[in-house]
Amino acid sequence: MISKTYTKYIQSLHEKKFRDVENAFIAEGSKVVMDLLTSAKIVCERLLATADWLKENEQQIRKYSNVPLEIIEDFELDKISALSTPNKVLGVFKKIVVGPIQPKGKITLVLDTIQDPGNLGTIIRIADWFGISAIICSENCADQYNPKVVQSTMGSLARVEVKYTNLTDWLIKNRDIKIFATALNGAGIDSIKGLKEAIILIGNESKGLSAEVLDLANEKITIPKAGGAESLNAAVATGIILSHVI
Amino acid sequence: MISKTYTKYIQSLHEKKFRDVENAFIAEGSKVVMDLLTSAKIVCERLLATADWLKENEQQIRKYSNVPLEIIEDFELDKISALSTPNKVLGVFKKIVVGPIQPKGKITLVLDTIQDPGNLGTIIRIADWFGISAIICSENCADQYNPKVVQSTMGSLARVEVKYTNLTDWLIKNRDIKIFATALNGAGIDSIKGLKEAIILIGNESKGLSAEVLDLANEKITIPKAGGAESLNAAVATGIILSHVI
Repeated sequence: MISKTYTKYIQSLHEKKFRDVENAFIAEGSKVVMDLLTSAKIVCERLLATADWLKENEQQIRKYSNVPLEIIEDFELDKISALSTPNKVLGVFKKIVVGPIQPKGKITLVLDTIQDPGNLGTIIRIADWFGISAIICSENCADQYNPKVVQSTMGSLARVEVKYTNLTDWLIKNRDIKIFATALNGAGIDSIKGLKEAIILIGNESKGLSAEVLDLANEKITIPKAGGAESLNAAVATGIILSHVI
Repeated sequence: MISKTYTKYIQSLHEKKFRDVENAFIAEGSKVVMDLLTSAKIVCERLLATADWLKENEQQIRKYSNVPLEIIEDFELDKISALSTPNKVLGVFKKIVVGPIQPKGKITLVLDTIQDPGNLGTIIRIADWFGISAIICSENCADQYNPKVVQSTMGSLARVEVKYTNLTDWLIKNRDIKIFATALNGAGIDSIKGLKEAIILIGNESKGLSAEVLDLANEKITIPKAGGAESLNAAVATGIILSHVI
């Protein structure tokens, strides 16, 4: 049984302005919650779960965390969940502390105005798959703590650092690292094979990269095309590019 | 002004059972509607649009089609639209007639239980980008005429044929074509480069390929992985695979 006040508190975390005030976010479902819980850098404030889920998972949780656990009924989970089909467990986590991102010696993704939460979450998951540890987001990207983003990362938020900042300032500060952008008339995608250090720019799906950001790119690459579609989904393009780097 | 009956008819097309009865579907937004309208193989029954949209596009439409055009008010579009933010134009189309798919001499995608409409639409769009003209879907895939699928194809439904059938029967009938599946312990992804004829299997995101389908694969390939994510989104995996074939 959770109090009215705590119910309202969790509901407020569905919205960015309250997440910012409380410095907290929610995550749901076994896979996502367990991935965040077992990450050394993420603090869990409270875990609310159905009795059967807790019975199955409590022992495992106690290996990693002494987080307060609370049994809730399905109707209570319905009230606090951001999912259309609530999924047995919901965790309240403190936002992750992300220091400055150093692009030296690694591949860094830079996202310009990725506004769809599903796309952002999927990109974080792709980065994790390919071992990319850091993503820089423009300030107008979707919020990494939006419940839809958290859900579509499938737990990868535990392993990929996401930093929001002014892109042009950040790119200028790191101009000693080569910056790659996708474009219609760029080099073949095989030219990025084996890169060990690079900044890869991904633009907004309908508008692409903003002019100021595109101006800072040193190299242009093209995803081969053989058919009629005008564009690719931003997350799909990210996956294709990273699969050719590795 | 549209009649109550026609309003109800369009609303019924949001659901599969009525799309099947009426043999029709809806598409919305300028890009998607215009792509379908200019396809020689797709019949439009009626186009409903705001006055300003029609003013801008009528001349262009008349080059391709003598479809009945109807001016509607925003509040009417709100009523018939399947989008949360209706987008100026909605077309009612007859379902596309798809004959048997012949996999000889080309790359054919075969989708096993892709249930998320956004994923299916994105896969159709990716196929179109890479010039894949045909997709075979298992009967329990999302419906290609689901408004969310139509929307996320971004018009590619006009250029890619999608056929629903029993996968094992179809694969056995076409066993002279090499069948590729992704797996954890397969060959490097570069092994598919330059393929001109192949069947590529894509499985359900959480469950992967069903055992009967996987059993029919001749070759296994692996998308390289360097990080912690357990899996990739099905559409992203499709994009990566096709980008390595081309």
